[in-house]
Amino acid sequence: MKNVSRELAPHDIVRLEDDRVVLLDQRRLPEEQVELECRSAAEVADAIRTLAVRGAPAIGIAAAYGYALAARNGEDTDEAAAILAASRPTAVNLAWALAEVRAAPDPAERARQLHAEELDRCRRMAGHAAALFAPGSSVLTHCNAGGLATGGYGSAVGAIRRGWEEGLVRFVFADETRPLLQGSRLTAWELDRLGIPHAVIADSAAASLMARGEVDCVVTGADRIAANGDTANKIGTYALAVLAHHHGLPLFVVAPTSTVDLETPTGAEIPIEERDPAELTARFPARNPAFDVTPAELVSAIVTEVGVHRAPYSESLPRVVAAA
Amino acid sequence: MKNVSRELAPHDIVRLEDDRVVLLDQRRLPEEQVELECRSAAEVADAIRTLAVRGAPAIGIAAAYGYALAARNGEDTDEAAAILAASRPTAVNLAWALAEVRAAPDPAERARQLHAEELDRCRRMAGHAAALFAPGSSVLTHCNAGGLATGGYGSAVGAIRRGWEEGLVRFVFADETRPLLQGSRLTAWELDRLGIPHAVIADSAAASLMARGEVDCVVTGADRIAANGDTANKIGTYALAVLAHHHGLPLFVVAPTSTVDLETPTGAEIPIEERDPAELTARFPARNPAFDVTPAELVSAIVTEVGVHRAPYSESLPRVVAAA
Repeated sequence: MKNVSRELAPHDIVRLEDDRVVLLDQRRLPEEQVELECRSAAEVADAIRTLAVRGAPAIGIAAAYGYALAARNGEDTDEAAAILAASRPTAVNLAWALAEVRAAPDPAERARQLHAEELDRCRRMAGHAAALFAPGSSVLTHCNAGGLATGGYGSAVGAIRRGWEEGLVRFVFADETRPLLQGSRLTAWELDRLGIPHAVIADSAAASLMARGEVDCVVTGADRIAANGDTANKIGTYALAVLAHHHGLPLFVVAPTSTVDLETPTGAEIPIEERDPAELTARFPARNPAFDVTPAELVSAIVTEVGVHRAPYSESLPRVVAAA
Repeated sequence: MKNVSRELAPHDIVRLEDDRVVLLDQRRLPEEQVELECRSAAEVADAIRTLAVRGAPAIGIAAAYGYALAARNGEDTDEAAAILAASRPTAVNLAWALAEVRAAPDPAERARQLHAEELDRCRRMAGHAAALFAPGSSVLTHCNAGGLATGGYGSAVGAIRRGWEEGLVRFVFADETRPLLQGSRLTAWELDRLGIPHAVIADSAAASLMARGEVDCVVTGADRIAANGDTANKIGTYALAVLAHHHGLPLFVVAPTSTVDLETPTGAEIPIEERDPAELTARFPARNPAFDVTPAELVSAIVTEVGVHRAPYSESLPRVVAAA
């Protein structure tokens, strides 16, 4: 069986024009497809901070374009890089992409190249990851690790898409992903466009679906992978990892090598963003950590564009990064 | 240390007047405190079905008042009982309370008595459960098992309240409880009135708080407890049970004996209500199970008004029900 998918064009998600960075405003999906125009590095940083663009690889690309715009505009590039780097703390791709464009003679050319490379990485990851799905798999994913999150194609959703095209993935459960509903707003929207059968569930319903045998594996993206394989991703991923482990199900992390941070030894050193409690409730006190860390021992495999990597990650990840 | 709590009056939650059953409309909390007047059994059943009143003990009480109203109005009482019994499938208190009022010579008197008894059971449960909290405990609860859910005082929240009054409970994390937000709307509202320090969290954040050592135990109510101790409660409770087990934390179920159903051998026989997918998303396909079942082996203790019961529940629960 071969299924056919309809792609979200990379330049529709984020692109550099002469005097602006143009972003599909992800805050307004799926109701409206509206573009946001940023005319300075500070405006791009605002777009990242307020989640108009989100997803670790996509904010790296947006920041690279933002830096290129600043360089072209004659802004102070040190200041532009600092503003962009500070826009969100957890994802490592942001710092990585900024280092790449700062070192390049033509930042705009390098930023476009980074975007194209990220897309290429996604396609290669999907090829590696699809081989992990047993035929007829029902896959659970969390947050949005789709084309929107990576500037095209997707990491976890890319893997799911390839698995579906190859007739291996049968159904997708998309966690709605509170508080900002990236699953029910963005992943469901992407799966709907791609024609992949799916259902949104409350985050807290995943466990009972696992207990009933309705889930075969969990696939997520990552915002940062420490040298030992500990993986920071959207809040709730760690819960899924514990639940998958309890039910004997694998959890696969699909993320580009730009997400691997060998400078961070373990998950304990990854900064976890705490966002505004008002995202949960404006009326009562709240705690709103935006990410959590999944210990390496709960990660069945990490899939990058280089291949499928297994524990011990402290040995496999340095080889992966060297090979990237 | 002694703390002082401000109580939600039982007759403000649900009461029988001459020609109507009056309910605090829980759908409109915390924004507005509005009463809903039901003038027939069918209107009470509607209020239960649409969650104007929810919580296993509270819907039992409301159904008892609804039956008494029907009897007083000269409605067909068999039909009234059937309509009320069919209003929601999972909680067993509904069937239990209806059987009680149907067998009584004066249904209105028996319904008011049931309400008073439920309140008394809550206070006794709280006394038993409070002894389970280590001094300085930080407690996580799910959904609303407060005064609103039990017609006054509360089961899990009653236990927390007693624990706080006795200086044992220091802080409460309230899961927001998607999709209908009973935690962030109702439990936070009750804790705020009671002056108990608390924070609302996304359901999916509980795991990482446990991993950081910020949670000492989990306390929930129950909609139905099977003879072997398997416990049906709001969707997400099972996930918390697995997560608590993984982190070596106890999970306590606080529920009146009216919740124990010896006719249901195990959780597999408990009907699980699937609610309208539109509660999650009107735009994409969704699955919306409203309850899940926690296997007895993940329940550290069941607390009823009779006392604290431990495994093997297939031995302790029949004794409990006989003693009630």
